[in-house]
Formats: sequence, C-alpha cells, structure tokens
Amino acid sequence: MEALHQKILEHGRVLPGNVLKVDAFLNHQIDPFLMQEIGKEFAERFKGAGISKILTLESSGIAPSIMAGIALQVPVIFARKRKSLTLVNNLYTSTVYSYTKQTSNDISISKDYISEGDVVLVIDDFLANGQAALGLVDLVHQTGADVAGIGIVIEKGFQEGGQMLRDKGFTVESLAIVDSLEDGQVTFREEGTNVL
Amino acid sequence: MEALHQKILEHGRVLPGNVLKVDAFLNHQIDPFLMQEIGKEFAERFKGAGISKILTLESSGIAPSIMAGIALQVPVIFARKRKSLTLVNNLYTSTVYSYTKQTSNDISISKDYISEGDVVLVIDDFLANGQAALGLVDLVHQTGADVAGIGIVIEKGFQEGGQMLRDKGFTVESLAIVDSLEDGQVTFREEGTNVL
Repeated sequence: MEALHQKILEHGRVLPGNVLKVDAFLNHQIDPFLMQEIGKEFAERFKGAGISKILTLESSGIAPSIMAGIALQVPVIFARKRKSLTLVNNLYTSTVYSYTKQTSNDISISKDYISEGDVVLVIDDFLANGQAALGLVDLVHQTGADVAGIGIVIEKGFQEGGQMLRDKGFTVESLAIVDSLEDGQVTFREEGTNVL
Repeated sequence: MEALHQKILEHGRVLPGNVLKVDAFLNHQIDPFLMQEIGKEFAERFKGAGISKILTLESSGIAPSIMAGIALQVPVIFARKRKSLTLVNNLYTSTVYSYTKQTSNDISISKDYISEGDVVLVIDDFLANGQAALGLVDLVHQTGADVAGIGIVIEKGFQEGGQMLRDKGFTVESLAIVDSLEDGQVTFREEGTNVL
C-alpha cells in the first residue's frame, strides 16, 4: 500500500535490533487519515468474505480496526491484555508469548460478542513472530466462529510469523511487508508477492 | 447526544456499585458508526477553538478520539498506562490515582508529538472522579501547550469529577451525563445543563 510505504519511509525510525519505530503515525501518535485509508484497504482485500466482526488487540490495533469496521460496516472487538491470569467468568482467554519481552501475557475477550456463525477478520498493527495473531485466532476458535483472515498493517517479512500463519492456511494480508532493516534502511517486499 | 443516550439505554448495563457497563459498544466491542457520530459531535462542540492535537488515554479513548481527529483534521496521541515508574528518557509522565482500584498508575507520552504552541483537546471515554482527565491535562501542561477543553463520552454526573474540572476553569463537554443509576435505571441530565 503506497501511502503506508511513503509514511514509513518518511516517519518510521529504524533502531538497533531490527526495531522499526512508527510512533509518529501508528503506535503512539496516530494519523487518522492514514488509518482511514488502511481501513478501506483492508475492506477491499477482504470484501466478499462475509465478515461479521473484527477482532483486534489493544491498544495499537484499535485505530486501524475501527476504520476497517466503518468500511466493512461491522462491529470491532478489542482483546484486552492481562498481566496475570485471574479466574474471571464469561471470558475466553489465550496466552501469548512475547519473544521480545520474554514474558507470557494473557489476552481475553468476553463471551458475549463473538459466537458460532460469526466470520471474523483478525487485525493487528505488527506481525513479527506471529504469536499475537495466533492468540487472537485461538480466541476466535474458542468462540466457535470462523476466521476470515488476518489483516496486518506492517509485517516484518524477515521474521517467521507471516510464513508460519500462511503455512497454517490463513489468508494473511499485510499492507506493508518489510523485508530488511539493514543499515537503517527500510526495504519493502514488492506488492503482490508473499515470498522473498 | 440523543444517539448515545439511546445506545446507553438499549445496551448499557447497570451493575451494583453504581457501575455502568458499556462493553457492548464502547469499552470492549465498539460500534464504529456511533464513534463516527461521537467524533463529529466533539468537533462541533470544539470548532473554532483552534485545536491542533487530540490527547487521549489507551485503550477505550482511542476509538472516539480517532473519529474526532478525522472530523477536526488533527492527529491523535494516546497516553500509555505504565504499572511502575521506570526511568525512561524523552517522556512526560503523570501519576493517576484510581479510587475504584485504589492504586496509582503512571501515564506517559513521548516528548515528540505535543509542544508549546499546540492547542490540545483532551478526550476520554468516562469521567467519574476526574483523576484520569487531570493526569492528561497535567501531561499537556508539561509540554507547554494549551488545553482547549475536555471531551467526555459519558460523565457520571453524580460523582465529583465534572464539577471539579469545571471549577478549575476547564471547558468540559460530556456527550451523555448520567445523574443517577439508582434501581438499575439510567437517568440522564437534560442536554445543555451542566448543573443538577
């Protein structure tokens, strides 16, 4: 997605350890008009899939998801992160391991808003190891609903998450795939190709 | 705001302890079209104030803020909640006491996105004791920017936060003011009146 590529090149910052910081428009400050374009692009890529709900993860997934919700005319549910597992009724919970932080966190949703018969689009801001996306997919499966696909704003193509999810048969649509951050330079994968 | 009142009456749930649960459309599942209306209403109420940025708090403040950002054509920054104060450079931090949880949490923003000369609209989903709004206002003041006002989706008019903020001279615009949750019934304050 050209507008997103341009924004990353202009406002993204490459930090040591293959970190791409996009606090200027996605993860802290948010450009609402870019989010609107992103929402439309997700809707275009998943049109005809019969999506009835969008599931995302707080906090950075919310803005692009709300805009996709407008474009697809469906409600958005955001899973909450919880530090510790407490016994709470009426929740579906999944455990997500963070390789970056080397900790496990629970994510959970109420049992009230997604159920069998729903077709769910999973959206997240970043895809690296794929553990957060797997956790969201697990939550959808616990509800008995179907996963229509996974929409990602920025995929780190040099990490294994995207391949892992595609190998499992999921439709993964990433609006920008970054194949390298070497020497502080962002290199994008060509549009329309999901392999190196 | 009539559409919001209707939504609260139809989908809000009153729980013991004066809790109004709006997980069905604001705090967990989000109705993106209601958020769009809310964004337009905030923009209408604060038009002419010269707003250049919106500041909100993760996670439930993000959706209404993004829509206000579209309507006002300005970027949105969301403050992050942090459990413990760690020495981090390049952050403004404020401490927010939660009467409900009886704990203090730090909220923080990067020094990069709001600065002197900015005119900031503070938005949050709920206003009860007003401590979160005060924390956001404190962050804006640390940056040297001006606070244009405080936009609230749902104010609990029977708690002291709204009065306290208005007494301090802030323009507080709440799209729904709930004056009572007694006997499980939601009673709204009449539009256009800020006093009981």
